[in-house]
Amino acid sequence: MSAWVLPDHIADVLPSEARHIEELRRELLDTARGYGYELVMPPLLEHLESLLTGTGEALDLQTFKLVDQLSGRTLGLRADTTPQVARIDAHLLGRSGLTRLCYCGPVLHTRPARPHATREPLQFGAEIYGHAGPEADLEILQLALDSLQAAQASGLQLDLADARISNSLLSSENLTDAHRHDVHAALATKDVSALQRLSANFSAENRRGLLALVDLYGDIAVLDEAAKRLPATPVISQALAQLRWLAGQVQGATVSFDLGDSRGYAYYSGMRFAVYAKGASDALARGGRYDGVGAVFGHRIDRDRPAVGFSLDLKELVMSVPPLALRAAICAPWGDAPALRAAIAALRSQGETVVCVLPGHESEIDEFHCDRQLIEAAGQWVVQSI
Amino acid sequence: MSAWVLPDHIADVLPSEARHIEELRRELLDTARGYGYELVMPPLLEHLESLLTGTGEALDLQTFKLVDQLSGRTLGLRADTTPQVARIDAHLLGRSGLTRLCYCGPVLHTRPARPHATREPLQFGAEIYGHAGPEADLEILQLALDSLQAAQASGLQLDLADARISNSLLSSENLTDAHRHDVHAALATKDVSALQRLSANFSAENRRGLLALVDLYGDIAVLDEAAKRLPATPVISQALAQLRWLAGQVQGATVSFDLGDSRGYAYYSGMRFAVYAKGASDALARGGRYDGVGAVFGHRIDRDRPAVGFSLDLKELVMSVPPLALRAAICAPWGDAPALRAAIAALRSQGETVVCVLPGHESEIDEFHCDRQLIEAAGQWVVQSI
Repeated sequence: MSAWVLPDHIADVLPSEARHIEELRRELLDTARGYGYELVMPPLLEHLESLLTGTGEALDLQTFKLVDQLSGRTLGLRADTTPQVARIDAHLLGRSGLTRLCYCGPVLHTRPARPHATREPLQFGAEIYGHAGPEADLEILQLALDSLQAAQASGLQLDLADARISNSLLSSENLTDAHRHDVHAALATKDVSALQRLSANFSAENRRGLLALVDLYGDIAVLDEAAKRLPATPVISQALAQLRWLAGQVQGATVSFDLGDSRGYAYYSGMRFAVYAKGASDALARGGRYDGVGAVFGHRIDRDRPAVGFSLDLKELVMSVPPLALRAAICAPWGDAPALRAAIAALRSQGETVVCVLPGHESEIDEFHCDRQLIEAAGQWVVQSI
Repeated sequence: MSAWVLPDHIADVLPSEARHIEELRRELLDTARGYGYELVMPPLLEHLESLLTGTGEALDLQTFKLVDQLSGRTLGLRADTTPQVARIDAHLLGRSGLTRLCYCGPVLHTRPARPHATREPLQFGAEIYGHAGPEADLEILQLALDSLQAAQASGLQLDLADARISNSLLSSENLTDAHRHDVHAALATKDVSALQRLSANFSAENRRGLLALVDLYGDIAVLDEAAKRLPATPVISQALAQLRWLAGQVQGATVSFDLGDSRGYAYYSGMRFAVYAKGASDALARGGRYDGVGAVFGHRIDRDRPAVGFSLDLKELVMSVPPLALRAAICAPWGDAPALRAAIAALRSQGETVVCVLPGHESEIDEFHCDRQLIEAAGQWVVQSI
């Protein structure tokens, strides 16, 4: 096999797309900074048990493992950055108040998450630790939407759900992990017959509620329908009221609901969301509340911190937004005359791209779009249109 | 062991340093872009033989290996980005003319390169492919110095050498790889007695030249001394003349020479350099000419391209430059009033950081330095000094 063939679902990012991703990276990090989120850079490699503690089997299967020559211990390459950021909040910062953190870096997956997905997403995300209220949920929702808008994504659709609803319907049933898993899988695929079979021994109220969830998707009317068809427990009533409040507050997207969507049920503990670009089937960003994810990392009981956040893959995002305009550049001749070199340096310090034509390459076309050239006229170096 | 202990020589980068690294990253990429270098993003993971072809044993030992579940083949985590960029030039772009590429991303090392080094450097670098002349050498030298100056590194010292000198002295001797390796190791440590022993059977001229190299370090006078003490072969004369020309052209650093410095001898084929900050013992950036590195990747014989480039580690660089000033922020109360939300959004769109004080956290101090606050006065939201 040729030395230049890359592994499946692994690719180089070539100049025009790489530049676009770099621009998006800056827009996203600057948007998060505008909200007061502090940047952290966790390592790519950690002891496997740190990466996987409390995160479930799915992440384990996605994580590449290797052996540390220095210690003989097994290391993992991060497949998700959130558990690392939770570790930083819990252990390294150890603040008792509210902490806002963001990150942007590669993650690696043993297998692609979807048929055409890369195994090396570039993950951007933001998280609030230390606040359990819907105000933090709203801030994260709005930051996710503002980030996507800063990246020029348009026609955004926000899909809201809440993990407390299905969890509440299942909490009084004494279920094995496998049974609970099957119920959530049936909810995710809206498989009514499987759900009927799996809930055969549930209380009538819980069973009715679970079967109702399959239909509870659509616009704001879904919340009225849910209030009628779901048991009016305090948890479910609060979840529905908070979804209604969030939908009324959030700006910049069409809001819809899918109360039966229980992807990530083992992880999320409250509001959950996904943002779609118009007409796209894969979400551009996903997030929600996952109180307790950092519990395992703390020394103290109070490190079990409420948390809400979101993440997205820049390599996916770049394919959903309009391409960057070609950046214009200035062509300059090569020479060692001080006046020429000073003229080039001055243009570069003003933010211009100045491409020097090295000797022997005078007739080549560069990738940059040179719309101007530096020429000598009456003893001065001046920029002239081409 | 606690779940938050990281492997040796692996660390989190926390907020203030992470922000500084992000700022440096932008300065470096923008400097390279000002010169017309196109950004590429090669993957972290490749088939092992692609990463290591033609690169030597040292890189092999530095490279983490793992098995691809999709193919059963051995993958490597890149320990250096240059071979990947050479592959991109040779195979993916396949241009016949000059190509300028730059990159910035993590690399991973099985063992730290120095006693206190990280095993996860953040490597930035730039390369010119397709030009064999000293004009390309000069552009790379100047870009390396301009990049470091853009990062606020000061008191720069540029150390120049040329791999052709020692290679030329050894080319007519029939040496085993081990013998050649020992000679270069003796040159690197300026070990005269080892060099005398290893060169016992060399021609008198080559032997005299090799032993002279040990003393040939210092300022520009070294080049005059070298012309007297080294054999006046065409290759050596050209190398010395080009070093003299480069030293006269390059701007922004004190220039010195170390003609016996033969680190990376298996890799470099011409001019080599290292840039030091005043008083530092480890180089901030290293580079040079390595014609032929991409040969193995081409389909055609002409893909054996001349190449010159440099790289640096942003995690090292950030420790050698003055810290970032604390960025001032505006504190704002939390509220759902449209006028308040509009005032906050307007400030953020002007590039301000506006930190909302979420309910219940009114008395906390944030990491951001809030020097102003948003308050309501006479029905208007206005920014006021604290």
